[in-house]
Amino acid sequence: MSGKHVLALSGGVGGAKLAAGLAAVLPPEDLTIVVNTGDDFEHLDLTICPDIDSVTYALAGLNDTERGWGVKDETWQAMAMLKALGEADWFNLGDRDLGMHLARSWRLRTGESLSDVTARLTRALGIAHAIVPMSDAPLRTQVCTSEGWLDFQRYFVAEQCRPVATGIRFEGVPGTMPSPAFAAALAREDLAAIVVCPSNPYLSVDPILSVDGVREALEARKVPLVAVSPLVGGAALKGPLAKLLGELGQPVSNRAIADHYGDLLDHLIIDEADAADAEGLRASGLSVTITETVMCDAEVRERLARVALSAARIETG
Amino acid sequence: MSGKHVLALSGGVGGAKLAAGLAAVLPPEDLTIVVNTGDDFEHLDLTICPDIDSVTYALAGLNDTERGWGVKDETWQAMAMLKALGEADWFNLGDRDLGMHLARSWRLRTGESLSDVTARLTRALGIAHAIVPMSDAPLRTQVCTSEGWLDFQRYFVAEQCRPVATGIRFEGVPGTMPSPAFAAALAREDLAAIVVCPSNPYLSVDPILSVDGVREALEARKVPLVAVSPLVGGAALKGPLAKLLGELGQPVSNRAIADHYGDLLDHLIIDEADAADAEGLRASGLSVTITETVMCDAEVRERLARVALSAARIETG
Repeated sequence: MSGKHVLALSGGVGGAKLAAGLAAVLPPEDLTIVVNTGDDFEHLDLTICPDIDSVTYALAGLNDTERGWGVKDETWQAMAMLKALGEADWFNLGDRDLGMHLARSWRLRTGESLSDVTARLTRALGIAHAIVPMSDAPLRTQVCTSEGWLDFQRYFVAEQCRPVATGIRFEGVPGTMPSPAFAAALAREDLAAIVVCPSNPYLSVDPILSVDGVREALEARKVPLVAVSPLVGGAALKGPLAKLLGELGQPVSNRAIADHYGDLLDHLIIDEADAADAEGLRASGLSVTITETVMCDAEVRERLARVALSAARIETG
Repeated sequence: MSGKHVLALSGGVGGAKLAAGLAAVLPPEDLTIVVNTGDDFEHLDLTICPDIDSVTYALAGLNDTERGWGVKDETWQAMAMLKALGEADWFNLGDRDLGMHLARSWRLRTGESLSDVTARLTRALGIAHAIVPMSDAPLRTQVCTSEGWLDFQRYFVAEQCRPVATGIRFEGVPGTMPSPAFAAALAREDLAAIVVCPSNPYLSVDPILSVDGVREALEARKVPLVAVSPLVGGAALKGPLAKLLGELGQPVSNRAIADHYGDLLDHLIIDEADAADAEGLRASGLSVTITETVMCDAEVRERLARVALSAARIETG
């Protein structure tokens, strides 16, 4: 019997949607969701893990689908008080979200690893699938701009991605190790596929690939690697990807996504709006699926998850 | 010209009301409000100062007058998330209140003293009067019960004062110093009166008196010390005072309050409901005023403040 375990690599909102779709069609024992922690940061002494939270809220059904990020039924009372007190208010701290940040920060301070804290908190919310940080050690994304190197959240939230980006790096202790569950998933005998969720390749997936040994393990893998493109209609559905591609001298197209992943990529799933990209991609030897990738509801999420698994030759019920 | 600076000693809710009354009738330069920090504690890595917050919210007009504690228009969303996450939920963390705890905790971690943080945050809320912690160092109230020594908030909130109290102590480094502004107020040339707000003598005022040198400075003072009794109709308006008096073998009466303050006390203000206590108190040489002490609105707060100042022979406009 061939393997059937799926390792998904995810960033925040877009990635979280596909992660939720995969969790809806795969039993917990068949899926490990590894999440980017390059966006993590400390704010008012809270450790905030935006992508872990996005994936957690999506799998718990707590994500706000209208606003597109954060927790549904969110309020902003603590934030209003912080503003009244003259304190740092550039990062939106919702009240319900704050409960998560407080719980995580407190558990981390008691000495639990980010893996353990994430397992504890996701289980408490009734999530049976494994949501795993890429590493238990900090490896933080920074963006080089005309204003110097900016921490990711400064660039993304405070500066709203306005500065022109000329480079990206991941700051941490050299040789930062994958989290135990990530390392274990990479080494599984029954690993059947890697699914790269529709997240920003530079800002959300590259941090995961920069963890020590991960790129090498993926290069040596014997299973298909399927990526879902984050582009729709030649633009990013959300976030700074299109602007970033331009600034880094890349075309805003699936060609850039494919080139970025290079030899790691076996199969790219692109949106119907970009069907025209398929011919060129296939001409260069890449396997391509054209489908609906805008996950506006659970049905589309699950359908896209099945398409990705099917591209990796994994059967789902 | 004689002095005219007033030093008020306050605990939480009841004390905060009189502190707000004093602030309404005295200009900022004539009042220092020293607040009990014996109730302070760490919870989920936040430093919570319940009495400083009660006084701050009362002076800023942000206190919830219906519930009787905390911030008005409060919500409990972060708390609901913490409960969903399975985290400590015995202490009620309101969302707006949480903004205060976050701001304070963060500033303390950057190295600011509690005095400086309190000055910063109260000014930000538009409070011109000085709200001053009794000390910048921790001196934490503990209650001896059949379950052993309990931290104050464990006794007060988690256990709801159910255990029988047999003793009270204030845990801290021996010789814990008064905060700079408290020490300065005690030493002022123009100090004209000490007003002890209607707070629990054992749990809210004694911690202040236990700060190094404070009792001695009060004993050596040359100005009147006026206390407003926290009892109304032979019972505590709020909190565990009556139960505590019984457990400590004291009558639940103004006699116990007067005896507790002993020689420190020049004048006791008692409620109309306890008018019968006056004769005995006066017979023992104490000066007594009978007035309305239940501060149900700003008008009563200010009137009581004027009565207290008048008892200390301080004129107000």
